Amino acid sequence: MARITRHGPTVAFDPKKNQVLLIDQRLLPHRFEVFRSEDYRTTARAIRDMVVRGAGAIAATAAYGLVQGIQAYRGRSLQGLFRHIDRVFQTLREARPTAVDPVNAMVRIRNRIQTCQSVEEVRQRALEEADRFAREQVEEARAIGRHGATLIRDGMRILTHCNAGRLGFVDIGSALAPIYEAWRQGKQFTVFVDETRPRSQGAKLTAWELAQAGIPHFVIADNAAGYFMARGEIDLVIVGADRVVGRTGDIANKIGTYTKAVLAARHKIPFYVAIPLSTLDWELESGMQIPIEERSPDEVLYAWGTTQRKTFERVRVANPTSPARNPAFDVTPAELISGIITCHGIFRPTDLWSHRSTLQSGFSS
Amino acid sequence: MARITRHGPTVAFDPKKNQVLLIDQRLLPHRFEVFRSEDYRTTARAIRDMVVRGAGAIAATAAYGLVQGIQAYRGRSLQGLFRHIDRVFQTLREARPTAVDPVNAMVRIRNRIQTCQSVEEVRQRALEEADRFAREQVEEARAIGRHGATLIRDGMRILTHCNAGRLGFVDIGSALAPIYEAWRQGKQFTVFVDETRPRSQGAKLTAWELAQAGIPHFVIADNAAGYFMARGEIDLVIVGADRVVGRTGDIANKIGTYTKAVLAARHKIPFYVAIPLSTLDWELESGMQIPIEERSPDEVLYAWGTTQRKTFERVRVANPTSPARNPAFDVTPAELISGIITCHGIFRPTDLWSHRSTLQSGFSS
Repeated sequence: MARITRHGPTVAFDPKKNQVLLIDQRLLPHRFEVFRSEDYRTTARAIRDMVVRGAGAIAATAAYGLVQGIQAYRGRSLQGLFRHIDRVFQTLREARPTAVDPVNAMVRIRNRIQTCQSVEEVRQRALEEADRFAREQVEEARAIGRHGATLIRDGMRILTHCNAGRLGFVDIGSALAPIYEAWRQGKQFTVFVDETRPRSQGAKLTAWELAQAGIPHFVIADNAAGYFMARGEIDLVIVGADRVVGRTGDIANKIGTYTKAVLAARHKIPFYVAIPLSTLDWELESGMQIPIEERSPDEVLYAWGTTQRKTFERVRVANPTSPARNPAFDVTPAELISGIITCHGIFRPTDLWSHRSTLQSGFSS
Repeated sequence: MARITRHGPTVAFDPKKNQVLLIDQRLLPHRFEVFRSEDYRTTARAIRDMVVRGAGAIAATAAYGLVQGIQAYRGRSLQGLFRHIDRVFQTLREARPTAVDPVNAMVRIRNRIQTCQSVEEVRQRALEEADRFAREQVEEARAIGRHGATLIRDGMRILTHCNAGRLGFVDIGSALAPIYEAWRQGKQFTVFVDETRPRSQGAKLTAWELAQAGIPHFVIADNAAGYFMARGEIDLVIVGADRVVGRTGDIANKIGTYTKAVLAARHKIPFYVAIPLSTLDWELESGMQIPIEERSPDEVLYAWGTTQRKTFERVRVANPTSPARNPAFDVTPAELISGIITCHGIFRPTDLWSHRSTLQSGFSS
């Protein structure tokens, strides 16, 4: 997977040049451009700066970033390499503290290399494991799609928030996987796409994806979802997640997800969360323990877009002397979630724990 | 009131030139500029195009627009004048169908002139009545402020949505009136300002007003209010309204208000609606009957702001091949509202009807 095109994948690795390749999502839909990261610190920064975002995509990016750090190791001591790996791991983990997928992906690689006997063996196994992780994620997304598509009926109006599509994954996505699969099956429906301020991943990325796939959709202001629900114009909500607490079924996802879940509950609209298994956190006791990243106030005070001269610019959309606060994620408690769509089927959020042996065993296609 | 400054009023009338003067709110906070409307059709368009917005401000604008139409009448027949007035009335009413204040303000003028015996007398009385309406609105806002300020205690964190401040009125405002009054009384508090996409009246207008007044505040994405509520960081919500159904206490206000009310109810946070009496509609049977304006999809697909070159431009913030839907208002049912703050005190929404004789008698300072 050493190449990226408009049609995917979102994340790739070039082992010859030791480069992580990413669709530069900061520029979409304005311009399609591939970002090439030369070293793991740049890869961590690419996660922090949102060149790449989305649970699955940053997991694969972190996995390849770890490989990249390993490949760049110039020493010959195995012990020295493992200390180096700890630093690389830490740097990549801190790039997006709310997400658990990058940690899970990197732990998987670390587990796989711990019995290695040589630096060379670590290099080789780490790369194999990262490649396997990326490949399996795509297969897993297809399985999520098959299970989730059973929820979609002809004529439905489906709301989604942020982007948990192929741009949020190596390919296909989580929340959009059922939508792509149902569309492939010939079902007719319409997707309502929350703009998802402050970074507008809905209006920019999800809308771009759905337009590419030819799936009917509308962009709406984040403020408008409640209006459409109250009028009976939304039948189903599907979102992704950055972390799902296996013990309780609480989830963290893009800021605004909680609001949509509260509204959906009030209007008795099914609210589903679609995730790969790497989004599951089996350690935390509850959603309240999930660390929530507060990002730069500038994301709220500015908007990025295409001017009439076709340049891509930042404009100040708020009063210049006013400060802002910018929590990037929020927590939705299990009680508001109808089901968690996984590659192993759809579970009630509070049933995840009792199915943990299945869910922890991973995905095999 | 024939002059406008940075410190108010928002709406004025120049009887010599027969011009309606407005702060051009499309340009704030980028630039302060006064819009001069030469005729009533331009005034109606100024309402439609959001040169002026906010229940109270468009009510005064419509009142002066009606006067402007009357002054421009060149005929000598009183009957002809009244037919002309009907056309002017209709044009101004249609400029913002969701709001009732403009209608109430114009009806007040029409009632006042119906016994007039000459064209000249109509002209004079209409102008007097429009001026009285504008003056009384400011006094009424002060009274709203006094009643509402009793809800605000030291240390509170208050959420507001859209702009119901002095820019939404001839001066002072409705939702911001209690905030201005409590601040004047020396209370300390912080205001959380919803950005209020798609037109960002919170980030642009409310933040500008609060910064001018030196009141501590943060701008937040519309998506973030639920997060702050869940963390116990919001103590009180105060919003304005474009229409309040007197029979039931249901209200229509800027899109997203309903969502904030649903969230506030879940977190048991008091949710208040501050209004002048002209926002009360005694005809409708329920909030579901309030006509909701759908505005241009471009408001969702674009954002307006200041570039780094200090120009004011529109940028496309959504995928260029995606359509949008853009309802401008939503309805919040009485059950979600703690109280309606008026110049006559604070009422439970379902008690408005039993106090209708007081509330219909109008405001006298």
